[in-house]
Formats: sequence, C-alpha cells, structure tokens
Amino acid sequence: MTNRRLLLISNGSELIGDNPSRFYHDSLKDFLGASVKRVLFVPFATVINSEDAYRDKVRRHFGPLGYEVESLHDAGDARAAVERADAVAVGGGNTFKLLRAVYESGIIELVRGRVRGGMPYFGWSAGSNLACPTIRTTNDMPIVEPPSFEAFDLVPFQINPHYTDYHPPGHMGETRDERLGEFVHANPGVRVIGLREGTMLRVEGDEIKLLGGKPARYFIKGEAPRDVAPEESFNFLLAEARP
Amino acid sequence: MTNRRLLLISNGSELIGDNPSRFYHDSLKDFLGASVKRVLFVPFATVINSEDAYRDKVRRHFGPLGYEVESLHDAGDARAAVERADAVAVGGGNTFKLLRAVYESGIIELVRGRVRGGMPYFGWSAGSNLACPTIRTTNDMPIVEPPSFEAFDLVPFQINPHYTDYHPPGHMGETRDERLGEFVHANPGVRVIGLREGTMLRVEGDEIKLLGGKPARYFIKGEAPRDVAPEESFNFLLAEARP
Repeated sequence: MTNRRLLLISNGSELIGDNPSRFYHDSLKDFLGASVKRVLFVPFATVINSEDAYRDKVRRHFGPLGYEVESLHDAGDARAAVERADAVAVGGGNTFKLLRAVYESGIIELVRGRVRGGMPYFGWSAGSNLACPTIRTTNDMPIVEPPSFEAFDLVPFQINPHYTDYHPPGHMGETRDERLGEFVHANPGVRVIGLREGTMLRVEGDEIKLLGGKPARYFIKGEAPRDVAPEESFNFLLAEARP
Repeated sequence: MTNRRLLLISNGSELIGDNPSRFYHDSLKDFLGASVKRVLFVPFATVINSEDAYRDKVRRHFGPLGYEVESLHDAGDARAAVERADAVAVGGGNTFKLLRAVYESGIIELVRGRVRGGMPYFGWSAGSNLACPTIRTTNDMPIVEPPSFEAFDLVPFQINPHYTDYHPPGHMGETRDERLGEFVHANPGVRVIGLREGTMLRVEGDEIKLLGGKPARYFIKGEAPRDVAPEESFNFLLAEARP
C-alpha cells in the first residue's frame, strides 16, 4: 500500500470549530496539495445536529481553503460520488452511527480501493477510527448497531482519538490506559496509538509522522504503554501485525 | 412477566470489593430470600483477571452469606448449570466481552425463560446492562465484537450503570448526559435510567424500587433528562414502550 495518503486527526474542533487553528488548516492544505479540488464529505457521525448542518459547517471552513465539498448524504449515487471525488473527508461524532451508515451507503470496498490507489483520506475523531481495521478502540457509546465492527482498514493499527491520561480525582471509572490495556489484552498483537487532542498522524505510503507537538501513547499486549515523541519514528506501526 | 425478580446494581465494588457494605449484602439477602441456595455466576466480563480469580472472589463474599456459587466457566454443560441454579448472578467488567461469551455459551433463551418464570437474576455494572433489551447504553469500550447487541431483555428499558453528571473542569469529551441524549435521540421511545454509584433497582413483577438513597436519572427522547427520587414510583419504566 505504498500509495496510501491519510491525515488522521484526534479532534475536529480546531479544524471546523468556532476558533479553527492556522496549524490545522495549513496541515490540511499541505496534505491535500494543489491538485485536490473536490472533497467528498461523509457526515454520518452526527447525531443531534442534521447532516445538512454538518455539511454547511464543513463548507464554511473548507471553502475558503479552496475546496469544493460534496456531502455523501446529498449524493443520489453514492458510488458515483466516491468516483468523482479527489479526496474523502470523514467527520467526527458517533462512531457506531457513522459505521452503520457507511455500510448502508455501500461504499466501503470502493473507498478502500481508491485510498489504496492514492486518493487522500482525512478524518477526525470517529473519522480516524474508521480508517482503522475495526472500530474497537472508539470511545463512543454503541447507540446503534452496525452490521460489523470492521471498518475501512486503511492502516494496520488501531487509533484511540481524544487520548488522555488525565484522571479526575474522585472518578470511579476506568482510566483510558486501563480501557486500552483491556483492549490489547483481548487482542494480542494488535497495536494501538492514542492520539492526544491537538495531534494527528500523517501517513504517506510506508511513512508516518506525528504532527501537533505532543507525544502519542503506544499500546501493545505484553509491553507497558509508552509515549512516543513526534521526533521519533512511527513507521513501526505499519509493519505487518504480529500473530 | 409478573414473576420476574431482578436486582440490578450500578457497581459491584460495595458487593464484592475489599470493603463490601452491609447495605449491599443485606439488600442481596433480602432479595434472594431463604430458598435460594445455589447461585450460578457468570464471570465472562472479566478481562485482565482470570475467570477462576473472579469466581473465587465472588465465593469469598457470597459463601458467608449462605450461597453456594457455581461459575458458568466451570460447567461442562452450560444449559444444565442454568437448569440446576436457584438464581443467576452476572458480574461486571467489559460488557462486549460478557455478551459475546454469553452468546457462545448458548444460554440466552434458557436464562430468559427461567427469569421470566421466576428465577432471581442479579447483576452489577455489565451484568445490569445485560438484563436490558440491548447493550447500547454501556459505558464500555467495544474491545471484542459480539454477534449482536441484543441481550437478555428481562426489563423493557435500558440501564446506564455508573451514571454520573460530574464533568471535570477542562475535560473536552462529552458528558454522560450528552452521550445518553444522543442515545435517546437515535432511539425514539426507548427509556433509559442512569443508576448512580451506590444504587440499584429491585424489580418484582410489575413493581420497581430504587435502593441506595440517591435519585436515578431518567432519559427519553423529547423530554429533558430528570432525576427521579427513591421515594417516587419507577413503575412507569415497565409500561409498554412507546412506538
């Protein structure tokens, strides 16, 4: 998969929120490059707000950056919309609702094929979960049931977006490290990278870089979780999974 | 289902933890009554610790209360174990792992039939999730994939265990109310009761009581979430679900 190009973002608020950051917009423009004009937006993770509202919000931010945004929920022919896109953007929200709707749209294989062939994919939060083999490292509540937990499978590792090691005093629930420790215990050989808020992974073929200036947290069964700094190599995440 | 008897507990730490509370043990003895001797324990929610260790912990607490505990993972014939039990106890841990293993054991219909026929069911945390129609109001990470989200369906409403309205300062994730607000938005007519730590629901046929001295939080689409105090009636949760 040497042609794959992905930008996988922990959190969308600095990309499409009320106070977007220059760093996010510059990172996106640098990733997409000059040739991308038409971005296909997948809005299905939204729950309370409408897909129309989500599309409009994305257009308000991406339009001034020079991108024309088509939303998948507006497309009469979902497969044709994927075929005519220069890039695909998958928005955050609820991962289970997103995956269920993506299955219903019938585009999983087609998107996978186009991204493996070089079409840029970017996503934030649930949209980063969907780039992974499965959604089993989402933080979201399973409010609806998708036909499977298997997702786009564009990278051979799992992402935990909004990763935090903050544990509020008096909180009785598990820490994130405990939850991800249970995940790796139940899934030997599967690598997980926890992306802190404000960070993103840029994947170009067999190269990965962590952007955003904070370390990411790495988990695999049999090893203590550890931070990996932006200046270290993340390419080990792309090696063939251990048995 | 006028014969059903359930004790659905938010959190097991006061039942089987290092400092169990008299209130929990008394509530359990009062619920089970004098005729229950043999309790079938379902240990499958444990992830890091072994099922043997979970069984032994439960035995240390339930033995002195007068109950003989058989663990389902020890049973050569799972169905026979259900048939010979006087009551079933479903322990907390990861709800997805629990439900997957319960499906693998092939006992869902049998347990459902016996509980509808009067066999007492008690559970804590994930074990309370499993008494509901589905596991879609669990707080857990979907670390493994069950064949379905449908669970024992012993009550016609959803429980959110470990319910809290605490929102730590600086936390960027959703509040529990926001998560459950998304659930009810996506599931019109489905009622959810958030059980705070230290509380439990006791169901006897068509009567429900909240024990533990703190209000529970009620959610349904189209209404603002609201607290329901222990002295109020909870029987509305058992009415036929709205379309």
